[in-house]
Amino acid sequence: MPQRGGAADMAEPIRAVIFDVFGTLVDWRTGIAREVHGRLGRRVADPEAVADAWRALYQPSMEAVRSGQRPYAKLDVLHRESLDRVLADLKLHDVDEPTRRELTLAWHRLDAWPDVKPALLRLRERFRLAPCSNGNIALMADLARRNGLPWDTICGADLARDYKPKPAVYRAAADAFDCRPAEVLMVAAHSSDLAAAEAAGLRTAFVARPQEMAHGRGERHAAQPVDYSAPDLAHLATQLGT
Amino acid sequence: MPQRGGAADMAEPIRAVIFDVFGTLVDWRTGIAREVHGRLGRRVADPEAVADAWRALYQPSMEAVRSGQRPYAKLDVLHRESLDRVLADLKLHDVDEPTRRELTLAWHRLDAWPDVKPALLRLRERFRLAPCSNGNIALMADLARRNGLPWDTICGADLARDYKPKPAVYRAAADAFDCRPAEVLMVAAHSSDLAAAEAAGLRTAFVARPQEMAHGRGERHAAQPVDYSAPDLAHLATQLGT
Repeated sequence: MPQRGGAADMAEPIRAVIFDVFGTLVDWRTGIAREVHGRLGRRVADPEAVADAWRALYQPSMEAVRSGQRPYAKLDVLHRESLDRVLADLKLHDVDEPTRRELTLAWHRLDAWPDVKPALLRLRERFRLAPCSNGNIALMADLARRNGLPWDTICGADLARDYKPKPAVYRAAADAFDCRPAEVLMVAAHSSDLAAAEAAGLRTAFVARPQEMAHGRGERHAAQPVDYSAPDLAHLATQLGT
Repeated sequence: MPQRGGAADMAEPIRAVIFDVFGTLVDWRTGIAREVHGRLGRRVADPEAVADAWRALYQPSMEAVRSGQRPYAKLDVLHRESLDRVLADLKLHDVDEPTRRELTLAWHRLDAWPDVKPALLRLRERFRLAPCSNGNIALMADLARRNGLPWDTICGADLARDYKPKPAVYRAAADAFDCRPAEVLMVAAHSSDLAAAEAAGLRTAFVARPQEMAHGRGERHAAQPVDYSAPDLAHLATQLGT
């Protein structure tokens, strides 16, 4: 899809840049598969399939919160519940409690794509930066420490006590920075996230992460018009004049 | 008052250290007086008295939120309302809107006491760190940038949508770090803040900041038992083994 003219077309300058994290900044699939293999060994034939099965329960688990069916529960809690289902499906009923707990924390130990840290350091010179992820604050703080991500604060689900793509999550991030939604740029590798951010009044930037999914099947292009589109964060930082 | 035995007495290790900010980490009185003088000049005879008058409205302004009389409003909003009252009391009715707006942002431009940054860098090696202030996130983010404060995230009033000393504010900070309250150490120069943190289940550290108040009248000692007590943050960092 064509990208829009970018900042020059816009009335308001961008003051803050916020980021989706799983897939956009960190490689969840390789990291989760590595820890599944490390902790369950040959009991699991295909660790990447386990990562995919676990991630497949991500949206349904949050939907119970978004729909009001259950009160807000942080992603660590949902991840653990989903893991229990995945292990049950694999007939791995005897995986012990400490292993389940450590596997859940594998989401705190993911690696960033190599372009992320240097691009964030450039963007930080001009913009306020925060993750706007469905991951909880402790999870985001651990990823930031591991990967040197220079956040001003951590926005996202824990701050809004609801999950993306609910508009309140994007708006809470803008409000945290004392910004109007149009002064905030949401960066993601997923068109659905950007469509929701745009509906909430934010500006949007697509970054391609085909390697997020098996066989390079992550999105290569935004499915709808966006304000910026880039093959990686380094290019986006350049487009934003940093 | 005597201090308790410190970490050796405690069952649970400290995993996160959170901080009061105004007075404990930054010198609000000198900073506000400087900006009042800079923007209102000789119209104000005693800029420090204006800082004191503004700060005197701090607790009453939050009490309306704490008591449920009004919905949560961030500290920037309360600061602005209080400023309008202070200027009215001084018969400075003609101070224009941009000046009022810039004066309100003076709270975002305060300087840290000189021991703060190096001590936080030491503490960061072992603990998760966050402010737990009644200041809103944007205000805290601006203070962090100005003074190089290495936070993992920003906790406090905006996260809890209520004001200290309500227990929810301290507990929300612990929960953000996936900690039990007893795993979190609250650091403040004000006994009342520490008493509330202790009542919420946190551990407590007093830091003396006599220069916070006119004539060195800030608290020199905690008014009740605390887990740690130090003349500045460097000593506290040492007591905590960093």
